[in-house]
Amino acid sequence: MNHSALYNLSYGVYLCTTWEEGKPVGCVANSAMQITSDPASVAVSINKKNYTHACIEKTGYFAITVLAEQSDSKLIGRFGFCSGREVDKFEGVPYAVRGKLPVPDGGMAFISCKVTGRMETATHTVFLGEVIEADNMQKGTPMTYAYYHKVLKGKTSANAPTFRGEETENAEPERARYVCDVCGYEYDGEIPFEELPDDWVCPLCGVGKEHFKKQ
Amino acid sequence: MNHSALYNLSYGVYLCTTWEEGKPVGCVANSAMQITSDPASVAVSINKKNYTHACIEKTGYFAITVLAEQSDSKLIGRFGFCSGREVDKFEGVPYAVRGKLPVPDGGMAFISCKVTGRMETATHTVFLGEVIEADNMQKGTPMTYAYYHKVLKGKTSANAPTFRGEETENAEPERARYVCDVCGYEYDGEIPFEELPDDWVCPLCGVGKEHFKKQ
Repeated sequence: MNHSALYNLSYGVYLCTTWEEGKPVGCVANSAMQITSDPASVAVSINKKNYTHACIEKTGYFAITVLAEQSDSKLIGRFGFCSGREVDKFEGVPYAVRGKLPVPDGGMAFISCKVTGRMETATHTVFLGEVIEADNMQKGTPMTYAYYHKVLKGKTSANAPTFRGEETENAEPERARYVCDVCGYEYDGEIPFEELPDDWVCPLCGVGKEHFKKQ
Repeated sequence: MNHSALYNLSYGVYLCTTWEEGKPVGCVANSAMQITSDPASVAVSINKKNYTHACIEKTGYFAITVLAEQSDSKLIGRFGFCSGREVDKFEGVPYAVRGKLPVPDGGMAFISCKVTGRMETATHTVFLGEVIEADNMQKGTPMTYAYYHKVLKGKTSANAPTFRGEETENAEPERARYVCDVCGYEYDGEIPFEELPDDWVCPLCGVGKEHFKKQ
């Protein structure tokens, strides 16, 4: 079997959010799709290891925020490569309560859902949610997972079903590679990494230079 | 609730195929996603009205063929806007048996699956399939649903969860509109429709001019 065939499936880039004892929590999700149109329902696949998974289990609600190509990519670093068990991902991230759920600012649309079904697999739960509220937030082009990979040069969380192990497609052996140890972003700017100013931060997740490791 | 918010979810364009008493059958699917990585599994949502749904139920197997932007869009017309109850969609479509399943030529990758789980909704079944075989078929860029809509000006089957009712975004009141009654393709070429040669066919599903109705 050639696993790379599965990389040709198309996905968006979403934040999946809910509550944990009154505090907003969430994670990045790529695997979400509409299932029925009337009543509208949406399925989202969440890794059982994710803190957000346990919180959706408890509350029975989740919201999907659709990120746009224009969205601040730091949202992906923040929500996709840290755990809500360790950090408050919403710290400094403004949000509104829409359809009972916390919806971070910066997306282009949100879909708030009540869990009405589920499908269990070894590592992920596919939650089915009936849409209780949905709206557009700002104009833009929905960010696809392909855009995230190719244009933003983003990497994949180890908890994602699409995780491909060590990713080396952008390797440039003639130059030292510097990779963010938080989000996996690989620096590829014109200026050599060593000459970047001290206040330079990862364009994807926003951490400082000290988080970049020479490969 | 603003239903248009749901249009911002991203999808690919796939053919979902299986067997019916030794004959290959299939339909277009947009809602497919990888769920687990090891063992690899994929979920696909199929409308219960689709002939393919009944056939997957019987066989317990399905294959996903990933269409590329370069794929012949007639495959979408053929598989997406006719019923396998009435026509042999594979007539004139070469295919190979890959991982026990019929995989039409013209895609860029295939993923053959054995059904291992399911989630029922009012109108659709989400089939979970463990991948039994997968491979790339040719190079290309996976076709997204957005590309299909914007570039190919394709329409949506009434059985799709993303069906939006009457679609009028491309209306041009100053010129008569000609719409294919098989696949919904709206002619928008430079030459007036009336002046097209008699052997002109729908670029999306391949039927003749007589299938285009003045709106």
